[in-house]
Amino acid sequence: MKKYQLMAPGPTPVPSQVLLAMARPIIHHRTPEYEALFVEARDGLKTLVQTRQDVVPFACSGTGVLEAAVVNTLSAGDTVIVVVAGKFGERWVEIAKAYGLQVVPLTAPFGETVSPERVAEALARHPKAQAVLAQHSESSTGVLHDVRGYAAVTRGTSAILIVDAVSSLGIADLPMDAWGVDAVVAGSQKGLMLPPGLGFAALSEKAWERAKTSTLPKYYFDIAVERRFVARNEARFTPAVSLVIGLREVLRMLADEGLANVFKRHDRLARATRAGVEALGLELFARATPSPALTAVVAPRGIDSEAIAAAFSRDHNITIAGGQGEMKGQVFRLGHMGYAAEFDTITALAALEQILADLGQPVDFGASVRAAQKVFAAR
Amino acid sequence: MKKYQLMAPGPTPVPSQVLLAMARPIIHHRTPEYEALFVEARDGLKTLVQTRQDVVPFACSGTGVLEAAVVNTLSAGDTVIVVVAGKFGERWVEIAKAYGLQVVPLTAPFGETVSPERVAEALARHPKAQAVLAQHSESSTGVLHDVRGYAAVTRGTSAILIVDAVSSLGIADLPMDAWGVDAVVAGSQKGLMLPPGLGFAALSEKAWERAKTSTLPKYYFDIAVERRFVARNEARFTPAVSLVIGLREVLRMLADEGLANVFKRHDRLARATRAGVEALGLELFARATPSPALTAVVAPRGIDSEAIAAAFSRDHNITIAGGQGEMKGQVFRLGHMGYAAEFDTITALAALEQILADLGQPVDFGASVRAAQKVFAAR
Repeated sequence: MKKYQLMAPGPTPVPSQVLLAMARPIIHHRTPEYEALFVEARDGLKTLVQTRQDVVPFACSGTGVLEAAVVNTLSAGDTVIVVVAGKFGERWVEIAKAYGLQVVPLTAPFGETVSPERVAEALARHPKAQAVLAQHSESSTGVLHDVRGYAAVTRGTSAILIVDAVSSLGIADLPMDAWGVDAVVAGSQKGLMLPPGLGFAALSEKAWERAKTSTLPKYYFDIAVERRFVARNEARFTPAVSLVIGLREVLRMLADEGLANVFKRHDRLARATRAGVEALGLELFARATPSPALTAVVAPRGIDSEAIAAAFSRDHNITIAGGQGEMKGQVFRLGHMGYAAEFDTITALAALEQILADLGQPVDFGASVRAAQKVFAAR
Repeated sequence: MKKYQLMAPGPTPVPSQVLLAMARPIIHHRTPEYEALFVEARDGLKTLVQTRQDVVPFACSGTGVLEAAVVNTLSAGDTVIVVVAGKFGERWVEIAKAYGLQVVPLTAPFGETVSPERVAEALARHPKAQAVLAQHSESSTGVLHDVRGYAAVTRGTSAILIVDAVSSLGIADLPMDAWGVDAVVAGSQKGLMLPPGLGFAALSEKAWERAKTSTLPKYYFDIAVERRFVARNEARFTPAVSLVIGLREVLRMLADEGLANVFKRHDRLARATRAGVEALGLELFARATPSPALTAVVAPRGIDSEAIAAAFSRDHNITIAGGQGEMKGQVFRLGHMGYAAEFDTITALAALEQILADLGQPVDFGASVRAAQKVFAAR
């Protein structure tokens, strides 16, 4: 028996009770039953995003709501400043260019970050810039960007700050209203412990003002129109009913745990994972603040990181992820977000020790587990 | 005990075995397991759409792929001819206008259809029209439009025919290649017996040619880019994994039944339903070819159709649908698509008899069931 374990940086495991809730007979979306479900989910999302604004759901994956944030707040020819320090930063550039926006990329080598000072300089150089686009957690490199800092330097300008929180919502603290973030977008398959297929977008007052004059074309992803339905406890188009049922379940679980505890849990899992891999002499890929959602690890010299990911799957029935794009072969990524707990981390590290030994690396068995245990013991 | 029955014109019931298949632990989408699943689903979709073209899936509801068909094949300022004889015809107009297209609406009173001759005349009057947009089954009125006829008159022109098959795929025969339809779009929650959240789009060679020069902006719904991933057995963005697992299950069920039998089943259910409601002296809303997906019924004089729909739910735990938009209060709609069989029809009709009697109508108990039984007996 090799128990199946999903430890990739998304999709993440779905709790069995949530899977079974979603397996209940499907209900119609224009009924009192659905309305009650939707109202609870809608309110729970506001708590999770830490905002008084509506959090508008869409049936789509994360990239759909990235696009939604752009097309609802910007107009053709607008200039946007984009933090590009990973594959998802590059995705913001692709979306912006697809809609004819002028892109000012602020690049950093993958694994590093872009400082708020650089964003401030770019805003000063481009006073007509209408938006700053950034990830919170960049899933391709395992870096957590300084969204609080970006918000501080964007606040006094005419630009809005749009944040991809796909791998940070319910993982890393992102108090939208308190920090002054203008758009937060996220999906269902990371911190929310659900299958992929739901996206969410929340806009600040400043972003809603911008939405009034936005000329980029949209229909399915029209957040302003959808919000009118949300206000009536409805969905404009047929919603992904089974995923919304699951959403209510996971929001209850997160509320029971308490949001502060959820963030602490992820922080502890991330610190334990980093301590474990470093105890094996491995190098972290992140050379800036690491993300609490995942840990990107540089493969030992002479070993293809894809071979490590393949061994996790083949020998231990554990799905992790290799590197994306130019990081393929160099980096493997361990997810510890969503439905993830201490002994999952222990499992991942123990498996890593076995795999490195199998690949001919010198391994002090138990070293990574010991390092993780010490993190967990320090309460 | 009142057994819950979903008999709305979508979402439709999901078979328990499919619900349980979707409740299996979530898998990652960049694994051999997902690839095998995706390849089977992709091939099954081609059989269902009766095409040699790729059927490209998206995580979205039906309206998302309606929009995808427009933005991938048309350019700003293009003229489109739209069949508007129901709420979903109006949706085509809204999407086209959102993208700055010139709309030539061919309207008919709701409950009626637009003949292929009218489409041919419009194409002759607007030789630069780039597309004809139509529903196959118009779910708001219960009418089946003559897509075969539309294809015949569009084929020799520069226009492409884009068909919303959301409530006809796997319900009414729509041989895309044989009829020469240029774009077929559909969703998961009707004939496919799945929860909402998956959409599909297939384009003909003529439509793919058009896609090469289409200038409307798109990113998430870029069918040409997505098709390159489909060809490698992949998804560009995180797919709705659990729904794709369900998709494989329902495609196996439909293949086991045989596509011709699937269409026959829906036709029989529709004929039995119509015979039943007419046996009660009720009038069908469709004054053109009725859809095999649903039956729209005019409420008896002096009775609000919403009261009938409410009684189905309150007194019998059966969800049906009332009328949309201006048909609200006048029309109720009985769905008989997807996971629907003979005794579901009997149940719906028996409940309708009870409800009409409760509302003070004279009812010959058993009359509608008898009429339906005769249809089923005539094999």
